[in-house]
Amino acid sequence: MVRFFAGLQDISDGIIPLSMEDAEHIRSLRLRPDELFVVCDGAGLDYLCRLGVRGGGSVAEVVETCASLGEPSVKCSVYIAFAKGDRLEYAVQKSVELGAHDIVLFPSERCVSVPGDMQKKTARLQRIALETAKQCGRGRIPEVSALNSFSTVIEQALCAELPLFLYECEDKVHLKQALEHHSVIESISIVTGPEGGFDPNEAESARSAGMISVTLGPRILRCETAPVAALCAVMFHTGNL
Amino acid sequence: MVRFFAGLQDISDGIIPLSMEDAEHIRSLRLRPDELFVVCDGAGLDYLCRLGVRGGGSVAEVVETCASLGEPSVKCSVYIAFAKGDRLEYAVQKSVELGAHDIVLFPSERCVSVPGDMQKKTARLQRIALETAKQCGRGRIPEVSALNSFSTVIEQALCAELPLFLYECEDKVHLKQALEHHSVIESISIVTGPEGGFDPNEAESARSAGMISVTLGPRILRCETAPVAALCAVMFHTGNL
Repeated sequence: MVRFFAGLQDISDGIIPLSMEDAEHIRSLRLRPDELFVVCDGAGLDYLCRLGVRGGGSVAEVVETCASLGEPSVKCSVYIAFAKGDRLEYAVQKSVELGAHDIVLFPSERCVSVPGDMQKKTARLQRIALETAKQCGRGRIPEVSALNSFSTVIEQALCAELPLFLYECEDKVHLKQALEHHSVIESISIVTGPEGGFDPNEAESARSAGMISVTLGPRILRCETAPVAALCAVMFHTGNL
Repeated sequence: MVRFFAGLQDISDGIIPLSMEDAEHIRSLRLRPDELFVVCDGAGLDYLCRLGVRGGGSVAEVVETCASLGEPSVKCSVYIAFAKGDRLEYAVQKSVELGAHDIVLFPSERCVSVPGDMQKKTARLQRIALETAKQCGRGRIPEVSALNSFSTVIEQALCAELPLFLYECEDKVHLKQALEHHSVIESISIVTGPEGGFDPNEAESARSAGMISVTLGPRILRCETAPVAALCAVMFHTGNL
């Protein structure tokens, strides 16, 4: 079913005004008057609606309200080192589909590509996150943001209960072991590196700050695959897949 | 480390002849004479080599032999319904990275795109599988093939110990439950549908033939994401990630 997001403040008396863009989208889909669509408030509620007209503008008339089902029980933040455009776009899209709470981009020693206009880049990726959230049935739109130093990433990632640092040179602890070691987890950070991997100094500073260094096994995953694989494993392990 | 594949028959007396293409690749990398690279026999052995010259041609001189580490302990075949070009390419690349044993493409009722020249399409995807296997350190090159009917897919998928049918309308059995229900699994099939999902008749015929219908949860994954997510979960569950 087609899905849109609206702010909480927009919903009153069973009527939700539609943005120009959403109204245009609905028109392009040629929905019949009795066909239903979903407007999600981005905060846990889905409104099953039909199309109506008020004061010359398109509105959504609420038929039924129910809880959004698309949100996982675990809050997983995905930190992705900057990479070439299509790789980042892929990683953001798949992370949203698989249930990431939010996505944070950051620079790392071996990054081959750091965007010139960070604000433009983040806005583009946020747009992808929105479209993906609509398509896959999320109950909220994951935020895409950027940090400008590795040390800030570590500081922020450490706020989660289980702060994971995916390091290809880690040869002791597997992601599975780290997850199984914690019986109940409510928040997780996943920090993944650039194409050339993390610099050993970065790995050392992350570990000494308290990040848990883990491996995803003997195969070398591409920089856009590693965050998605780790997130997928987290969602599977916590019963959210 | 740079990695190539060679046939078993090519390896004798510690010398492996290099194909024109691989020799060209090595030249383009400007490897120093003492730099090592790996030639994998595609059957479980990695040969650590240095570059040499014999009879005017480039050869790999074997320095050390060891077991390939990149192969998972479970044999997982991934069946992917035809999709638009880049989606298939993505699904094949990620499946190889994550350890798929082989990849089979097939037509399904709601496929929006079936390649005109099947042989050309499969050859292109096989090429992607080879390049990915080299990059990520696989011990063999997963085969990419195509079947021309849904019923043949089901027949072939049922040969695995655990034949899984990923169906978005399945609301009872989660992939996790199906995997946890089997203590030791050596071979698994994952069958995933096209953009519009499987037709209910296809799902019914798959189930009645013996496939285990499973869901990947409440979010609707794109047709190129579902096989990768399921494979990732299988590899994580079986200790191969």
